[in-house]
Amino acid sequence: MNVKIKWLRNQLVSLKLEGMIVSNPINVKYLTGLSEEGMLIIAPKENIFVTDSRYIESVNQKLTIDDEIVVYDIRNLSKYDYEAIFMLSENIGFEEKYVTYEKYKKYLQAYQVNLIETEGIVENQRVVKEKEELELVKKACEITDNAFSYIIRNIKRGMTEKEIAFEIEKFMISNGADGVAFESVVASGKNSSMPHAVPTDRKIIPGDIIQFDIGCRYKGYCSDMSRVIFVEEMDEEYRKIYDFVLEQQKIIATSLKDGVNIKNVIKDRETEYKLKNYEILHAFGHGVGLEIHEAPFLKSQIDCNLKENSIIAIEPGVYVPKSFGIRIEDTFHVTKNGCVSLTNSTKDYTIIKLV
Amino acid sequence: MNVKIKWLRNQLVSLKLEGMIVSNPINVKYLTGLSEEGMLIIAPKENIFVTDSRYIESVNQKLTIDDEIVVYDIRNLSKYDYEAIFMLSENIGFEEKYVTYEKYKKYLQAYQVNLIETEGIVENQRVVKEKEELELVKKACEITDNAFSYIIRNIKRGMTEKEIAFEIEKFMISNGADGVAFESVVASGKNSSMPHAVPTDRKIIPGDIIQFDIGCRYKGYCSDMSRVIFVEEMDEEYRKIYDFVLEQQKIIATSLKDGVNIKNVIKDRETEYKLKNYEILHAFGHGVGLEIHEAPFLKSQIDCNLKENSIIAIEPGVYVPKSFGIRIEDTFHVTKNGCVSLTNSTKDYTIIKLV
Repeated sequence: MNVKIKWLRNQLVSLKLEGMIVSNPINVKYLTGLSEEGMLIIAPKENIFVTDSRYIESVNQKLTIDDEIVVYDIRNLSKYDYEAIFMLSENIGFEEKYVTYEKYKKYLQAYQVNLIETEGIVENQRVVKEKEELELVKKACEITDNAFSYIIRNIKRGMTEKEIAFEIEKFMISNGADGVAFESVVASGKNSSMPHAVPTDRKIIPGDIIQFDIGCRYKGYCSDMSRVIFVEEMDEEYRKIYDFVLEQQKIIATSLKDGVNIKNVIKDRETEYKLKNYEILHAFGHGVGLEIHEAPFLKSQIDCNLKENSIIAIEPGVYVPKSFGIRIEDTFHVTKNGCVSLTNSTKDYTIIKLV
Repeated sequence: MNVKIKWLRNQLVSLKLEGMIVSNPINVKYLTGLSEEGMLIIAPKENIFVTDSRYIESVNQKLTIDDEIVVYDIRNLSKYDYEAIFMLSENIGFEEKYVTYEKYKKYLQAYQVNLIETEGIVENQRVVKEKEELELVKKACEITDNAFSYIIRNIKRGMTEKEIAFEIEKFMISNGADGVAFESVVASGKNSSMPHAVPTDRKIIPGDIIQFDIGCRYKGYCSDMSRVIFVEEMDEEYRKIYDFVLEQQKIIATSLKDGVNIKNVIKDRETEYKLKNYEILHAFGHGVGLEIHEAPFLKSQIDCNLKENSIIAIEPGVYVPKSFGIRIEDTFHVTKNGCVSLTNSTKDYTIIKLV
């Protein structure tokens, strides 16, 4: 049995749960490596992957005997088969954050057990990365750095935000990425004032500020990076906010390391924002892994200590409504001594010439 | 107020519900045109869109006074504000297929009402398309036809499935699509035996069969089409199955029209498959709209009558395990007289030369 499922089984024992239904596909992929649609059932006697006929062939190709996972075709399961899975069990964990109310009622009926909320047990397990996971994130970060370095040398006169976003994506895919980790943000001029701007047909012009928020996926694992550049010239009003945002990121990255409480670090930054009268439009950061946003979240409400080998994105931003916004973000590896940046694109003022 | 929300409000009255919480983002987009994260609340007094600070600016830019939708920032809502929304109401609808068990419990506490399952009320409303919706699907189908016609003229010696998929996507986006409607299937040789094959680094070689399943999104609306082509030559074993699959599609498309019961038509096809000893690995089709797979589903378990102005994809397929598969699919407009195909790429045997 793989180490991840073994670890989960130990956790379940300590929670007095006799089994668990894992429905969240990201958690299923984490525990089994499978991306096929289906449900992983940690049953007293065995691990079961329930899928349907569309996926049986490819699942059987991927699993080996060492995985110790039995594959069931959902069409062949009778009422009695379902009841047999947790026969003699009483309390079974389920994922209340993922399972819909409709499915919850169906599970109750099918398995005839008490369903107990597991409060993100697998999500919490995913926070601390294995060595192989770290390597995959590093590779995704490297592709992202290269894509950024490529695009800032290739923004042509008359190009639109959409076209730039497309070039970034094309570069990433041609350089080994599975795809983008999220819809790329390329927001120029006033569009940068919205943190989640979607690329438009607006053409880049001299004097523009351009906000990038980009990342890719490599063998399932994500990278996340934001940079701001200036076209042909850099207006004085941008400098003050750029420096402030960059300083916030440095302070957070220096403060966070193994064992440090997230709440305390973020509260200080919130105070700093309030002093400057800047609105806080989003969290200061989040974990990165199989999901682009996952635990731990860098919010002042999160009263928990960071753990070694977590991977987090730190992304302070300041937004001037209807005018512009500046966000700087890197993906970091949390170590005993501090945060090590995995994205390494320059954070000097970057003023490009249109080619 | 827009006609879609008015129609929904009438439905709620007939179900004796005093309001509804719409949480499924696709349903929110359908009813409001908004793609921003948030929840639509159909309350006795008003329509409310609850979102967060990231989206307030762009939502306010999009909504007009005629929409009659009030925008709330979730951060500003107190316990009392939540209770006030459905004050004096008793039974409020919610989307049990979309709301997680965790959210269900939170809603119960926040709104202090009975939450009643609405069994896909908005999904059912979405089945019959408005004229503007039909036009958008038509445009998405046209782009898909053009992408297919482009790619079969441009498959080069040594190209991989991934590269072909990427070229299709690039063509679609450069020709006005928002993006792909789903991850394109380009499955060559043995890979075609799996209905949901993901493009690999396998290079196309003479003698190959190539299965395409492609579609794009245009202003949110989807298209869906599958074709099979042959490289340099067409093996005799393919012909029999190709003809069978194409015949099944023709029979279904001719049988289905306004008022026809889905179950009866599909049951006949299932009998035909059994006679030939072909396994049925997926449904014979599905609705297409804001989602690539939506109601109505073409399955023998679906005992309901088709409605005029539905849009459906019809996609019979036959798969020979570990050998090859053939699926033919088009997007159709259901009318009083039958199904009108909106994708129009050739279904003659297509044997390409590598360029």
